Amino acid sequence: MNVEKTTLKEFCDMVADKTPTPGGGAVGAIVAALAASLNQMVANLTVGKKKYADFEEIMEEVLENMNYSREKLQQLAYDDIKAFNKVMEALKIPKDDPTRSEKLQTALKEAADIPFELAREARNVLKFSQVTSKHGNKNAISDAYSSAELAYAAFRIGMYNVLINLSSIKDEEFVRKYKEELEELKNEVEGIYKSIRELVKENGFEI
Amino acid sequence: MNVEKTTLKEFCDMVADKTPTPGGGAVGAIVAALAASLNQMVANLTVGKKKYADFEEIMEEVLENMNYSREKLQQLAYDDIKAFNKVMEALKIPKDDPTRSEKLQTALKEAADIPFELAREARNVLKFSQVTSKHGNKNAISDAYSSAELAYAAFRIGMYNVLINLSSIKDEEFVRKYKEELEELKNEVEGIYKSIRELVKENGFEI
Repeated sequence: MNVEKTTLKEFCDMVADKTPTPGGGAVGAIVAALAASLNQMVANLTVGKKKYADFEEIMEEVLENMNYSREKLQQLAYDDIKAFNKVMEALKIPKDDPTRSEKLQTALKEAADIPFELAREARNVLKFSQVTSKHGNKNAISDAYSSAELAYAAFRIGMYNVLINLSSIKDEEFVRKYKEELEELKNEVEGIYKSIRELVKENGFEI
Repeated sequence: MNVEKTTLKEFCDMVADKTPTPGGGAVGAIVAALAASLNQMVANLTVGKKKYADFEEIMEEVLENMNYSREKLQQLAYDDIKAFNKVMEALKIPKDDPTRSEKLQTALKEAADIPFELAREARNVLKFSQVTSKHGNKNAISDAYSSAELAYAAFRIGMYNVLINLSSIKDEEFVRKYKEELEELKNEVEGIYKSIRELVKENGFEI
């Protein structure tokens, strides 16, 4: 999988096939990159418009930050596939090999790290979805709201993938620390998402 | 944009640029296709496994139905771009042209139709996310949950895009009918999503 070569159809096919990679984690990273791209579109349709002159500067910030997020998320899509394949390799080590357990635990920790990064980056994108939802060109408001839905979904995908890996990790201190940080992040994300959903409702986009 | 030729990176770039297409609607259709693909992956990792023999038949149904959904959603991604461009064309007609209003209204109705189809198809995908979440291979359970998040997000994107188009449509009967049907669909989707989220919590995937 290569974001510069893989077509949309090929990516769907690679996801759908009988192999576990690319799985939810890589898909979540691509979806978060699409959310970032939608934020850029809204910002691009807002800058240079007299009506939105007050938000020129913040829209420039959206463009810059979402570029960074997209780069990062594309990298995470690869990293997720690589990390999962490492876990699969470790699982193939014969059970009587004394190095198996340590190798597997190390691989699992790495495999928990990547979706945690996805969860964090999805939070960053969601913050900017809030900016475009509040101050973006009203003609593209449904695109800003769409970006928020995708960033929120990507966050939850990150969370699911952290938790499925934590469930096999024996290092209790590691698990405790990750769960604590994840809970903090989740509370922040739920708060931002809730306030965007309220905005959606106020603006008549809830049926 | 062509799902068989456009790469992931190109699609992000096309979304991000200063033109309104591809926008939220096309992105929503691609995301729903990815949700369908994740359901297929979970089904592929479930069929042929002794432990899941009881669900062999229903997993075959997942595979078949999600193929149909993917085809349909890829088509909707194109249709969304085309329908929006028609609206843009109609908006360019000089305001003193007596045919302008009718042409614009016709284009807007078509532009409301496509995201409605997306909302319906996202509902179909979500139904199968419920199947894979309940009966799919436990090793891929986070992928089933991920599929549900994406299908739900795609439904809401469809809803936002129906509503933004309805807001410019003058035919009150058309608007009333669409809103009524959309509300019915939304209640169904919220119900399925809620029950998947309960399953997620029961299985320890909520922090």
